[in-house]
Amino acid sequence: MAEQIAIAARRAFEASQLVAASERDVALASIREALTTARDEVLAANAKDMEAAKPLVEAGKLSASLLSRLDLGRPGKYDAMLQGITDVAALPLPTGVVTFAKELGPGLELHRVTCPVGVLLVIFEARPEVVVNIAALAIKSGNAAILKGGKESVNSTTVLSRIIAEALAKTSIPSTFVQSVSTRSEISALLAQDKYIDLVMPRGGNELVTSIKNQTKIAVMGHADGICAVYLDKTADEHKAIRVAVESKIDYMAACNAAETLLVHESLVSTLWPKVANALVAVGVSLRADAATLAALAGTPAAANATASTEEDYYTEFLGPIIAVKVVSGVNEAIEHINLHSSHHTDSIVTEDEASMSAWARGLDSANCFINASTRFADGTRYGLGTEVGISTGKTHARGPVGLDGLVIYKYVLRSTKDDGSVIADHEKGGKGYTHTDISREQAPF
Amino acid sequence: MAEQIAIAARRAFEASQLVAASERDVALASIREALTTARDEVLAANAKDMEAAKPLVEAGKLSASLLSRLDLGRPGKYDAMLQGITDVAALPLPTGVVTFAKELGPGLELHRVTCPVGVLLVIFEARPEVVVNIAALAIKSGNAAILKGGKESVNSTTVLSRIIAEALAKTSIPSTFVQSVSTRSEISALLAQDKYIDLVMPRGGNELVTSIKNQTKIAVMGHADGICAVYLDKTADEHKAIRVAVESKIDYMAACNAAETLLVHESLVSTLWPKVANALVAVGVSLRADAATLAALAGTPAAANATASTEEDYYTEFLGPIIAVKVVSGVNEAIEHINLHSSHHTDSIVTEDEASMSAWARGLDSANCFINASTRFADGTRYGLGTEVGISTGKTHARGPVGLDGLVIYKYVLRSTKDDGSVIADHEKGGKGYTHTDISREQAPF
Repeated sequence: MAEQIAIAARRAFEASQLVAASERDVALASIREALTTARDEVLAANAKDMEAAKPLVEAGKLSASLLSRLDLGRPGKYDAMLQGITDVAALPLPTGVVTFAKELGPGLELHRVTCPVGVLLVIFEARPEVVVNIAALAIKSGNAAILKGGKESVNSTTVLSRIIAEALAKTSIPSTFVQSVSTRSEISALLAQDKYIDLVMPRGGNELVTSIKNQTKIAVMGHADGICAVYLDKTADEHKAIRVAVESKIDYMAACNAAETLLVHESLVSTLWPKVANALVAVGVSLRADAATLAALAGTPAAANATASTEEDYYTEFLGPIIAVKVVSGVNEAIEHINLHSSHHTDSIVTEDEASMSAWARGLDSANCFINASTRFADGTRYGLGTEVGISTGKTHARGPVGLDGLVIYKYVLRSTKDDGSVIADHEKGGKGYTHTDISREQAPF
Repeated sequence: MAEQIAIAARRAFEASQLVAASERDVALASIREALTTARDEVLAANAKDMEAAKPLVEAGKLSASLLSRLDLGRPGKYDAMLQGITDVAALPLPTGVVTFAKELGPGLELHRVTCPVGVLLVIFEARPEVVVNIAALAIKSGNAAILKGGKESVNSTTVLSRIIAEALAKTSIPSTFVQSVSTRSEISALLAQDKYIDLVMPRGGNELVTSIKNQTKIAVMGHADGICAVYLDKTADEHKAIRVAVESKIDYMAACNAAETLLVHESLVSTLWPKVANALVAVGVSLRADAATLAALAGTPAAANATASTEEDYYTEFLGPIIAVKVVSGVNEAIEHINLHSSHHTDSIVTEDEASMSAWARGLDSANCFINASTRFADGTRYGLGTEVGISTGKTHARGPVGLDGLVIYKYVLRSTKDDGSVIADHEKGGKGYTHTDISREQAPF
């Protein structure tokens, strides 16, 4: 069963490569239209999911926020989902872009052209509209996709997937270009289909990503915990320090780009630090502070909300109103601390010193290295990427907020227009050598 | 032990990030000088490896070609190894390149800057000079490396690694930036160090790559078998067809970019095909042909070297003077055959038809899609990439011949120059929005 799904996805991908890229936008329009028509049917299925979830929320087995994410009937939600399809259609095509072009010799031209990765397996939780969002991104980028939603949204997801397939059937993109599965055992079986599936994208936390990496030979793109830090350097400006530290911590505490650690330069312990501490405590944050930063709060209002930290605190994603605080001797120690303890996601320095900025941007092994800016900026939409497929804390393929560009790879197209074709003997072993001249990247050869 | 090596590599990588990139060339020069001085010592160690290998070759346990690859004392070999270091030093820096730059708002600039991946684990066979080559590539690209050579070259590799470490110790690049290990058990232990190692590069065949993928959560870049095809389309030119088919097959039969399969358009079976068949047989190639192509050879000289093919032949990397032949009904069937049977490495079409060329370039799911050109062109040096780290048949990160660009990823550097720093509240929730204006990519911010 899993193998059949994977083979169908592979065939759909391969067939779609012979279809003009402009047909992808036609397919997106068809899906939008079908979902507009089927609104009542989708909302009815979603209502079933909501009904099933409510007792679980009351029994404390599901969170109330999950229930809210599950609800497609919230005012504006369905229209936003439809608008998302239109927005993705309007993005520039990530495929067919020439990223390298050389003449190897007269009449022999090489182009490196971006193309879809192939077949994606995307695993996500709760929010049913993600099915539509991922389907749109996959279609726009030319990748076939197999989707697995959360078990709480199974009714919604099943109906949405069927409508997408029916809408595709009316276009030149195969209807199996986007498929969905609903059980965990199907995922395990799909993770073995490395012959047909090219990339797995678990959209969830560290546990999901690690568990999937342990199960598959397929490349995995995803993000681990978001253990982000703010570092107040020796020359930190007070106003910047308070604004950046406070927003990074409290703007949206459940987000992966929220700050969990605050590092303080030793020269600031009795000056700037108590002011920042009081600003954090004033908005409800508890401090887990090392000996030096804890002692410095004696007699300040913040002292009441400060306790001694443990080493474990510096590895913890609190996802709530707690921050771990530690003194460091300078930017190098701050970088060392973060490289060792963080999840290599997003970290921000507050400084006026160019040398510290340079060390930060170069030495920090994080996807997003910020200077005097809130960690909350780490987001594809804020970056102007158009949309965000997810955030990657991996070190290969794509890193940080991943846009449509993260769903493509490239192929080399070599074309000889010589009268007798091209063989390497024309260029080597007494042949005429290679010219290796750069040529125009304006247009892909086909 | 493996963990200590991995941690040492990680620390060396992190420390090196704070060193100016120009120091990498200083380190390369230091290594070249040290290896020039130590020539006798290295050749003495290599002679030990040769002595140990000779009885194994005589007993048929090692191939004579392996012995030749092992020999650093062959005329010109040592000097070529030294020149290789100079050549790598002369390549453009792959790091510090800005690939995306936007102003998010006044005084808030985002740059995406290429940077090293981190710590590489490279596993290779036989040729001891690969240690020096990989060390040079790792240093130039800013990646720390842990190297494991073939057991036949252990004496050479050990001495070369020690000299490299000593040469690094005289520079600002840490001496543990390049380390080597010599046993298979150390590799297994290193494959578990996903906390410290970012990328594994097995430079060997399919079996090595698959075995490593099964053992690790770390990203793996490598190439599988090279099952490459040449397809003679309906409009194929005779001269081009013979030149491309013959060179693709026989130029270097042990190479991964040599042709193993020949697909023939059905309209050519009694016309062009016998001429190509005779040209192949004339240079010593045996044909494994399907019913139609076999029957068409009756009465020709090629018939003596042609036998009936099996389905298995179309999945086989012969690496010798054999080619599997099959009739197809057109370019679409050729693409389907190759996508199913090949290793997605390099395939060439011989055609005069633009529509076939376009279908080939788009529909073929191979790293290298060639038109009227020998499959032997698939090579980093021939492509003008400067050097080749390896060839990847994976679908993420890097594909096809991989140059230094394949050893880098990127990070996002966001810098606020605003008087009060930047928080998202300045732009959202009633703030001023984002400008998302493209800005110059000329220079990295640090």
